Amino acid sequence: MTPPRLSLEEISGTGKAAVARALTQVEERADDPTTVALLDEAWLAQTAHIIGLTGPPGVGKSTLIDAMITRYRKAGRTVAVVAVDPSSRRTGGALLGDRTRFYNRAEDHNVFVRSLASRGALGGLTQLAFPSVTLLAALYDYVLVETVGVGQSEAAVSSVAQTVVLCVQPGSGDSLQFMKAGIMEIPDIAVVTKADTGRAARQALSDLAGALSLGAGHDAPIPQLAVSATANTGIDELIDALAAHHRDTEQEKRQATREAQAEAWVREQVEAHFGARGWALLTEKNRLETSRETPFSQARSALERLDLSLRD
Amino acid sequence: MTPPRLSLEEISGTGKAAVARALTQVEERADDPTTVALLDEAWLAQTAHIIGLTGPPGVGKSTLIDAMITRYRKAGRTVAVVAVDPSSRRTGGALLGDRTRFYNRAEDHNVFVRSLASRGALGGLTQLAFPSVTLLAALYDYVLVETVGVGQSEAAVSSVAQTVVLCVQPGSGDSLQFMKAGIMEIPDIAVVTKADTGRAARQALSDLAGALSLGAGHDAPIPQLAVSATANTGIDELIDALAAHHRDTEQEKRQATREAQAEAWVREQVEAHFGARGWALLTEKNRLETSRETPFSQARSALERLDLSLRD
Repeated sequence: MTPPRLSLEEISGTGKAAVARALTQVEERADDPTTVALLDEAWLAQTAHIIGLTGPPGVGKSTLIDAMITRYRKAGRTVAVVAVDPSSRRTGGALLGDRTRFYNRAEDHNVFVRSLASRGALGGLTQLAFPSVTLLAALYDYVLVETVGVGQSEAAVSSVAQTVVLCVQPGSGDSLQFMKAGIMEIPDIAVVTKADTGRAARQALSDLAGALSLGAGHDAPIPQLAVSATANTGIDELIDALAAHHRDTEQEKRQATREAQAEAWVREQVEAHFGARGWALLTEKNRLETSRETPFSQARSALERLDLSLRD
Repeated sequence: MTPPRLSLEEISGTGKAAVARALTQVEERADDPTTVALLDEAWLAQTAHIIGLTGPPGVGKSTLIDAMITRYRKAGRTVAVVAVDPSSRRTGGALLGDRTRFYNRAEDHNVFVRSLASRGALGGLTQLAFPSVTLLAALYDYVLVETVGVGQSEAAVSSVAQTVVLCVQPGSGDSLQFMKAGIMEIPDIAVVTKADTGRAARQALSDLAGALSLGAGHDAPIPQLAVSATANTGIDELIDALAAHHRDTEQEKRQATREAQAEAWVREQVEAHFGARGWALLTEKNRLETSRETPFSQARSALERLDLSLRD
């Protein structure tokens, strides 16, 4: 049975419960024509600043995000948070735990929180997060995407966000490990959390500066900030640095980033269903219709045109 | 051009250079009939104890493996080491670095070391490691599989090894993080490295015991050992614990483990090339020929029978 046609206007007019239902539809009935139509609409209407926050478990991202939500709300802006848990296939989401409840302002209709778990989903985190983030980016001013950084999730966050914040904490040696793992190529802004710890925080900032200077591929120096959500320091500076990154990235380049993310998502969709050979068949014969299509329509028509059979 | 037919006997008679060439053929020409024939032979001939070692970067796995190689060689046994680097797609193998040279005993033909990087390979680490480990398991007494544990690689090691050793170090908080991430379900033996640090090592053992007691799914208590490669303590106990795990696992169960790993590998092969729909088509129609075939022949014939086309 086809679910009823949903428009962005209806969803935003009805409140958080409607947003939650729409996201469930996006997660569970991605192939449905009504879902694709909704995502097409969202793709064209998205205006949010999509901010990714990543870093190891325990670094204090939750507290930081909570403080950011408070700042954005004071400025009259609306916020959605998407918490992505790479561990959930095994543990049912143990790393994120009960984060949803932590952020949620049940009485505030302008703060929306969603946990995404990859359990049961075909393919990786990006595939799951990209459509949900797109929908939320058409409904809220800011979309904060949080991942627990254990190897692959740092890359996942850069596949949906426009600005990536990497969080490390004092005394952890995180900077060095991240540098070794090539993760220092990813952030647009680097943050030392729990920076009420004085000397250790200064040391962490210095380690971070060293690690970042070795990372390749950055056009400009990466802003490095010390924040303390408990002492309430550095949060405004982070908000300003985020706004500056958004403002200083030309509209054209921001658009190009989203389009590259969309293309990677379409490819992942095709490969999850039909493998590398499916993608090769589409691209070799130049049969991926790119003109005037959103990624969601594009993926759907690609999947409909591929046909798999078994020889005897 | 088809490479010449290789037999296990020829390879083991010719020495390390021949083993290296055969592995390159396995990595680069997996679909070749001569490669499949060689892997079929290896699958039936494998007798090694395949030991996986995992843990975070910097925990001291390399030093530990080096000490294990020395012990095994003193006992007249032959050893192969496979170092798997999950980060290599981004960094070209930065996490493992120049490990190969570290272990290698150039003059000793009974120690063979290989680095595997997933760069360019279709699918995940398991796909790459499974055939290589199978070949080495037919040529050496012990195959030590090392992965750098950052999220997904702990699971990867359990997809090829018969006995999994998890390494943590004192003062790292690793035990807690691993427990949260569900990784405590994986090890058969847990080791605290750098255990010459006295009180910190005892604390780490105690944390580990706590974390392991919360992990589900273990039939028997997990041996927990403190080792120091520099102080040369605990290594013999680890060697004994490994032998005991191998001995206490019934032949039937060991066989079942390898067969389950083989099945997962075949599925990954099919999904990498033809996606989830390819696997569904094979299994729904019950067309996966399981009888009397090795995983390598099975994957090859499955891939040959699937056919993908594009509708207009």
